[in-house]
Amino acid sequence: MISTQAVRQTKSSSELCHKLGYVFIQPALLQRALTHRSYAPDHYERLEFLGDSVLGCVITKYLYSTYCDLSEGDLSRLRSNLVKESTLVLFAQQLNLGSILKLGEGELKGAGFRRPSILADAVEALFGAVFLDGGYLAAEKVILGLFVPYLAKVDMSTLGKDAKTLLQEYLQGRRLALPCYVVIDTLGVAHEQSFQVECSIPALKISTRGSGTSRRNAEQHAALAAYQIIGKKND
Amino acid sequence: MISTQAVRQTKSSSELCHKLGYVFIQPALLQRALTHRSYAPDHYERLEFLGDSVLGCVITKYLYSTYCDLSEGDLSRLRSNLVKESTLVLFAQQLNLGSILKLGEGELKGAGFRRPSILADAVEALFGAVFLDGGYLAAEKVILGLFVPYLAKVDMSTLGKDAKTLLQEYLQGRRLALPCYVVIDTLGVAHEQSFQVECSIPALKISTRGSGTSRRNAEQHAALAAYQIIGKKND
Repeated sequence: MISTQAVRQTKSSSELCHKLGYVFIQPALLQRALTHRSYAPDHYERLEFLGDSVLGCVITKYLYSTYCDLSEGDLSRLRSNLVKESTLVLFAQQLNLGSILKLGEGELKGAGFRRPSILADAVEALFGAVFLDGGYLAAEKVILGLFVPYLAKVDMSTLGKDAKTLLQEYLQGRRLALPCYVVIDTLGVAHEQSFQVECSIPALKISTRGSGTSRRNAEQHAALAAYQIIGKKND
Repeated sequence: MISTQAVRQTKSSSELCHKLGYVFIQPALLQRALTHRSYAPDHYERLEFLGDSVLGCVITKYLYSTYCDLSEGDLSRLRSNLVKESTLVLFAQQLNLGSILKLGEGELKGAGFRRPSILADAVEALFGAVFLDGGYLAAEKVILGLFVPYLAKVDMSTLGKDAKTLLQEYLQGRRLALPCYVVIDTLGVAHEQSFQVECSIPALKISTRGSGTSRRNAEQHAALAAYQIIGKKND
């Protein structure tokens, strides 16, 4: 007799394959990709390691071919802004991974199926499983199937740029004076200092503060706050 | 009339392709992979970025499939100990890349064709060029064609382990007491401190010192020195 849980699992697996656009030759690989270490010894961590590398390769090739005029440094910044936990969590939500992941009791109680790191790791493991099962081109198809629609929605001009650069470019584009950053406070002892920086843009009557473990970090936070205020004003 | 230099270049390119075991469909990609930024604007840096990612993917897949019992962490350490500048420089020497690289005058005078970073980058660019030209499987064949014979020669048991771990395993394997690490000196002011650590193994009458910017770092250096003494004794 087939249990209700087994039927539900099979249904969810085939829905997942449908969403991925890929049918596994070795369904055991898919099951491993969905198994957290808290559930069974045959879990997804090695597949995740493999998936991370094929994901990097596919996206690098895509960016290389799509952005012919970007330098190596710009491509690298763009990639690290695209291939990150929050993007993978979005895909996990699209694929409804949380409902099909196999987690141990402790993780289930702790709502592990909603934890970003678990969701992102499982997405990478899925990519690794497709790569092993169907080869590079199959993995590329699945990965780009998720990334290309996502890329169409993000503002590529802001990707890969830090808040200070974005703010500077915005002001330069409007011929306004650049922001002024001043350290207004330093707290704590050496090694554990916290800096408070003020970012002021008199022309826009904006003054924000940011803190961080380094002056540079604090400046970025202050710049981001200013950039967000500008964004809201322009909404 | 074809110049002597052009004939030499063509000869070297076909020798390189022979060594790589790959003939380019688009020879311009090979030429770009061999061109340093000091020589021409159409240089290898973007290809190097692409090559780095396909290299990572190919080696990860190979390690994943070859070492079925290694955890994600061990695979990661193994990979970073294999895919590094010194390994790529070895391949560059095998391929005689230094003699065929196109460098600007300044780099030529400064013997850039012997500089490890340039040689390693050019090897990655070559992998990127093969990947673009012939696809993933072609790149995999070229990369493994270089790596597999290399892997046969390295001592895999030492790869991916730090000096303290190696030393500990050596001593445990012989039922000897573990080494003792003592900080014997701290120099400099906060942020720029240097630690001196002594590593002693009374059972082997070994006592070594190491320094570093952190205690951990200094311990590793002291452990390495001890491990090297043991290695020499056993030669």
